[in-house]
Amino acid sequence: MHKRFDSEIIVRPSEIDINRHAHQSVYLDYVLFARWDQMKRCYKMPMEEFFKRGYSWATKSTYFEFNKPLYLGDTIIVRAWVEEIRQKSVKVCFQILKKGTEEVASEGYFVYVLINARTGKPENIPEDIIEVYSV
Amino acid sequence: MHKRFDSEIIVRPSEIDINRHAHQSVYLDYVLFARWDQMKRCYKMPMEEFFKRGYSWATKSTYFEFNKPLYLGDTIIVRAWVEEIRQKSVKVCFQILKKGTEEVASEGYFVYVLINARTGKPENIPEDIIEVYSV
Amino acid sequence: MHKRFDSEIIVRPSEIDINRHAHQSVYLDYVLFARWDQMKRCYKMPMEEFFKRGYSWATKSTYFEFNKPLYLGDTIIVRAWVEEIRQKSVKVCFQILKKGTEEVASEGYFVYVLINARTGKPENIPEDIIEVYSV
Amino acid sequence: MHKRFDSEIIVRPSEIDINRHAHQSVYLDYVLFARWDQMKRCYKMPMEEFFKRGYSWATKSTYFEFNKPLYLGDTIIVRAWVEEIRQKSVKVCFQILKKGTEEVASEGYFVYVLINARTGKPENIPEDIIEVYSV
Repeated sequence: MHKRFDSEIIVRPSEIDINRHAHQSVYLDYVLFARWDQMKRCYKMPMEEFFKRGYSWATKSTYFEFNKPLYLGDTIIVRAWVEEIRQKSVKVCFQILKKGTEEVASEGYFVYVLINARTGKPENIPEDIIEVYSV
Repeated sequence: MHKRFDSEIIVRPSEIDINRHAHQSVYLDYVLFARWDQMKRCYKMPMEEFFKRGYSWATKSTYFEFNKPLYLGDTIIVRAWVEEIRQKSVKVCFQILKKGTEEVASEGYFVYVLINARTGKPENIPEDIIEVYSV
Repeated sequence: MHKRFDSEIIVRPSEIDINRHAHQSVYLDYVLFARWDQMKRCYKMPMEEFFKRGYSWATKSTYFEFNKPLYLGDTIIVRAWVEEIRQKSVKVCFQILKKGTEEVASEGYFVYVLINARTGKPENIPEDIIEVYSV
Repeated sequence: MHKRFDSEIIVRPSEIDINRHAHQSVYLDYVLFARWDQMKRCYKMPMEEFFKRGYSWATKSTYFEFNKPLYLGDTIIVRAWVEEIRQKSVKVCFQILKKGTEEVASEGYFVYVLINARTGKPENIPEDIIEVYSV
């Protein structure tokens, strides 16, 4: 079981759609922000370091369940953790919680593939990166 | 097997991200546009009609696979079809194809729940709507 | 001269465009967030209160100068203030500053019209709202 | 007086905000799309050609008036034209018209600076580009 990390986000007016909820596609951006934040703040290996080493992470697939709507001004916690480290990819699970009540507004996962930034091809995840994500 | 419908979209400059591809969350908006377009144009029961009857469709869950990047100026075909009609929800599958080559850039599904717009609670899908979606 | 208020925002990965800067249209959303935040936190008259009284604010016009690009991970300060209170509208000026250096990345203004939420027509700004914005 | 060109866009569900209108920042993306479309289709000098020559266009400033709301499903015409060619920049005016009624929903301008893509510094606009934009 890997460590879970939290990032806090406020739902902005521009993210509210015709139904007066946070728009569904914005949820992907919330989790993307959380991962980017946690790579730097929690794993101490920021996205920039991957770029410098000639790597990038590409999203292979994603699954979202939408349980409770998010409203303008809600503060949310994006809780994310590494579920599984594979040869060329990492499965990251997440929950989007309402701050205060800890209600699960959404949950799901992303599969991220490590790619060679020059060729765009998947690469084996190096040992030191596996180690960083094994906390 | 239900009928498949196509909607055409041009990838806009504002949709391109730091990796020079269409940003992942924009894919959800492409499919949302296609469904909205097809409800009116292909099923002849536009979203507005659901609103008038006191209904709305809420996304319960979604799954996306990202196979090929989309680039600025690509014309894409969003092909969507009803995979399964359940008591209170509909599973809609989709493919995002590159126009011309018909390469599958992305595929997946959405589960949409019919809700009472006033209470926000799921409702049984009425017979006439089942019929409309049974083509 | 009216009081200036600050809101802090982190530039998110989803906001970076093909040029590797925060996308131009996102700047409008930053200022919208700052106003919404400052209405509640600084003026103590949140957007919800306007809604309850049957009002809404509509953007009549806006002007933006883009001086310095914003990069992924930049923390910005949106500084905004009421420049002028007119009969039916308010002119709000803003600066987007880079946190730390206080460099002005962008500046400009918004003209917001008070509208009757039911009719969509402009209304005279009531005395008590003029007072709230006269700090 | 320079030639005016039109690009057609359908307002998508994801672009509608809490007020049930197209969200204000989306207007900038509509005009950006129109310019990109017209550079290729009308001026026969696509954005890609600027990139190849080591140039890019950066937005220096923009002004928008919002006259009429845009609704879900509206088809709009973005009409744009070169208003003025300066040494290092071009002022482009636009109108966003409702298709059918030709009502002006929005109008304004963008000032675009020609920059050296490598250094990010403004450059004099070469003669052949002035000529292309002088129609």
